[in-house]
Amino acid sequence: MQVTVGMIASLVGGTIEGDAGLEITGPARIEEGKPGTISFLADPRYEAYAYSTEASALLVHNDFVPRRAINATLIRVADVRAAVAGLLTHFEGKGPAQQGISPQAWVDPSARIGDGSSVGRFSVVEKDAVIGKGVIIHDQVYVGQGVVVGDETVLWPGVRILRDCQVGSHCHIHANTVIGADGFGYAPQEDGSYTRIPQVGRVRLEDRVDIGANCTIDRATMGETVIEEGVKIDNLVHVAHNVRVGAHTAMAAQAGIAGSTRLGAHCQVGGQVGISGHLEIADHTRIQAQSGVAGDVEEAGQALFGSPAIGYKSYVRAYAIFKQLPDVDKRLRRLEQMLDD
Amino acid sequence: MQVTVGMIASLVGGTIEGDAGLEITGPARIEEGKPGTISFLADPRYEAYAYSTEASALLVHNDFVPRRAINATLIRVADVRAAVAGLLTHFEGKGPAQQGISPQAWVDPSARIGDGSSVGRFSVVEKDAVIGKGVIIHDQVYVGQGVVVGDETVLWPGVRILRDCQVGSHCHIHANTVIGADGFGYAPQEDGSYTRIPQVGRVRLEDRVDIGANCTIDRATMGETVIEEGVKIDNLVHVAHNVRVGAHTAMAAQAGIAGSTRLGAHCQVGGQVGISGHLEIADHTRIQAQSGVAGDVEEAGQALFGSPAIGYKSYVRAYAIFKQLPDVDKRLRRLEQMLDD
Amino acid sequence: MQVTVGMIASLVGGTIEGDAGLEITGPARIEEGKPGTISFLADPRYEAYAYSTEASALLVHNDFVPRRAINATLIRVADVRAAVAGLLTHFEGKGPAQQGISPQAWVDPSARIGDGSSVGRFSVVEKDAVIGKGVIIHDQVYVGQGVVVGDETVLWPGVRILRDCQVGSHCHIHANTVIGADGFGYAPQEDGSYTRIPQVGRVRLEDRVDIGANCTIDRATMGETVIEEGVKIDNLVHVAHNVRVGAHTAMAAQAGIAGSTRLGAHCQVGGQVGISGHLEIADHTRIQAQSGVAGDVEEAGQALFGSPAIGYKSYVRAYAIFKQLPDVDKRLRRLEQMLDD
Repeated sequence: MQVTVGMIASLVGGTIEGDAGLEITGPARIEEGKPGTISFLADPRYEAYAYSTEASALLVHNDFVPRRAINATLIRVADVRAAVAGLLTHFEGKGPAQQGISPQAWVDPSARIGDGSSVGRFSVVEKDAVIGKGVIIHDQVYVGQGVVVGDETVLWPGVRILRDCQVGSHCHIHANTVIGADGFGYAPQEDGSYTRIPQVGRVRLEDRVDIGANCTIDRATMGETVIEEGVKIDNLVHVAHNVRVGAHTAMAAQAGIAGSTRLGAHCQVGGQVGISGHLEIADHTRIQAQSGVAGDVEEAGQALFGSPAIGYKSYVRAYAIFKQLPDVDKRLRRLEQMLDD
Repeated sequence: MQVTVGMIASLVGGTIEGDAGLEITGPARIEEGKPGTISFLADPRYEAYAYSTEASALLVHNDFVPRRAINATLIRVADVRAAVAGLLTHFEGKGPAQQGISPQAWVDPSARIGDGSSVGRFSVVEKDAVIGKGVIIHDQVYVGQGVVVGDETVLWPGVRILRDCQVGSHCHIHANTVIGADGFGYAPQEDGSYTRIPQVGRVRLEDRVDIGANCTIDRATMGETVIEEGVKIDNLVHVAHNVRVGAHTAMAAQAGIAGSTRLGAHCQVGGQVGISGHLEIADHTRIQAQSGVAGDVEEAGQALFGSPAIGYKSYVRAYAIFKQLPDVDKRLRRLEQMLDD
Repeated sequence: MQVTVGMIASLVGGTIEGDAGLEITGPARIEEGKPGTISFLADPRYEAYAYSTEASALLVHNDFVPRRAINATLIRVADVRAAVAGLLTHFEGKGPAQQGISPQAWVDPSARIGDGSSVGRFSVVEKDAVIGKGVIIHDQVYVGQGVVVGDETVLWPGVRILRDCQVGSHCHIHANTVIGADGFGYAPQEDGSYTRIPQVGRVRLEDRVDIGANCTIDRATMGETVIEEGVKIDNLVHVAHNVRVGAHTAMAAQAGIAGSTRLGAHCQVGGQVGISGHLEIADHTRIQAQSGVAGDVEEAGQALFGSPAIGYKSYVRAYAIFKQLPDVDKRLRRLEQMLDD
């Protein structure tokens, strides 16, 4: 995807200082810039790289004044970060080259596929599924019976959406993620064995939800497991049956939520965090990586840390003393000797 | 799947108070009941919802005496929980609409498929595989060479059972789970690199084993990795090579067991628990979520907590003081000042 | 795969004491040896099993002197471990029976497939992909547009290599692993929602890299996520965008590394370890299972433990006192009473 500095400047509404005809093959971080790439200087702490980068072109603020000579052609813009976002969108691929329903796909005659949608090779769209407009179903995807997928959503290779689940519009579900496997529900029997409790609910993802690769979002026992609007979930995350994740909450990789918990809106859940079942977690809660939340969080906006999690600052202060515990023990022994002698 | 209140009453052996002709589309929890759903009152603590629920029908105990008017039609039964289980089984789907071997599947001529079994689209059943009776192999599943699958087992989309592994009867293996990938075995070389140790064993799952979605159960280096009868495993769980998990043990999501460990029967393993390699864990051990078990557990029936894990109560008591460590430090300083002045 | 003791002795260059014509069906650990298997005695601590094992044949050191009668036929070799490795390689399967490109695969006409490579059923090799020589692409694999795969690499069923990513030679990527899903990059908006940052970089795996099953290695925002030569990664591991993992580092199951961190060479990362983003971790760092690394590690060769991780020995010493904290509190109370009365 080769473009010139001039074309990029026009794309981002910038002014050029240098050679407008240079060919650009892709973007690069300023410390990794190579000839043929375009980089950017948004954070002044990286200014030193502007003088040493091998990138051919550099996006800088309108009022940037170089203190030394710069080899790269400059493109000056009002908002560097916005220009970079536009640039990345330009360089990002547009999904599958092929459009429409692949001859190697299997689409049930009763399924409805909206205009401009594509279904990839070896993908299955089951009975009574309803696929919106402009949906990209990549190769080797499974869309179960009665599933609904909203407009402009992208399902990457190996995604499994099991029967009756609903996916909103403008969602991204990354490769090999499973939406709607059975919840982990078993009734213990008197002999110590377990009997499976049928899981007849579904999963409902609202609009603009992104789910990473190899995640599992389980169907409800009854009713719905719900991921509300705008939630962003990283890879290898587990969401159990009947959980509700509030709007615009973000969950980092390998976090997990046990059954029936209601996580608030605008929360930030760190990597490898565990949240127990049947809890209510208030909006705007921030949970530090690897923490384990074992009780309700009633007040909004708290930061938590530890396993079991307590207030972030309390944990940090306690852990600071924890590291000195052998010394605490020694100090205590000294006093004991003084007093017991 | 529309049925009437009368049909449900007859299914669960109940008596009706109200309109037997009402149409029911599915079950709902009592606090989420909507018109057209059937709900239930098993736990007296939920009684208040009986008077406010919008559910059209309600399963209650034979001796339930309402204290106020109830809008829903009642179905009275001797055992509400058993009736709910029957109801859920009724509403649960029965696997793929299609039966038999899909024309889009690839089944090696040497493989044997039992009566009443189905193989889904884009699924592969390799050379010399032996599939029992009434097995459901969903779409996009891989069953490797020489694999044996017992009667009535269900393999969901994207499951991979790799060569020579054995799956018992009445098992459920959920979507995208991998049974029989190579164990993580490497011999360190003098130059600091690793040489792969071939993993020539297999995995054997006994009967009535359930494995969640996106799990990994690795094949043994030699011999077998064994999951004994009735074990229930949640999503994203890792079981390493040569591990043995005892009968009727339950493991919650994102737990992991390192190589060659023998986990006892009837254990309960919490979410995100880690168990080190080469350990023996006694029967009926209960391990709290996020704990890390680093040593043998010889006595049966213990509860463990912490990383490294110690007795549950010991951990809880120690953690209670941990939270006060800044205060402990202050108290100690005060005494030091008193004695050193 | 039936062979005789004589054939095995000749394979490993050993001398036979006993019946050279015995048929051997496979290897077994000495404590699990059954008639028809061959076992080995490498570690003297297992010598007792040599006298009780039911294995038909036993690999022992040239200078091994039995103290009692042994039923098994002995094969004497100079290096038992090396002989076992050779033996396991012999008994290990050789990949798919079928060679070449399956008629059920979909290979884009512009893709190049090297000599002696195979592409399995329902696998996809996209536009402009370049596959080396002797590569085994198992069934149901996805190889995206412009992907490069080096010689002799094996991609197991359900692996997804997304567009533009590069895989070295002699790599093993295990089932259902995803290479090159989008990094978890979002720009927070003023209204509390998130906007996706396009991820236009790629993943590059160098030679002899092994990745376990159900892992996720995310593509870089710009530039590359790099897994250097000889790295071995276990199952369910997460590597975020723009991370670099140094040569010959080993990572155990369910570990995760957040974005832009540079992990050194020859490190050992335990199971369920988490490493925060934007860190530099020195070579030869060893991180105990379940630890959380939250800061740079500047000095090479350190052992770390805890969450947040500190020096291994410091953590073990502090944790020893942690377990006694209720007692520490009591001791402190006694002194307080003595001094305050």
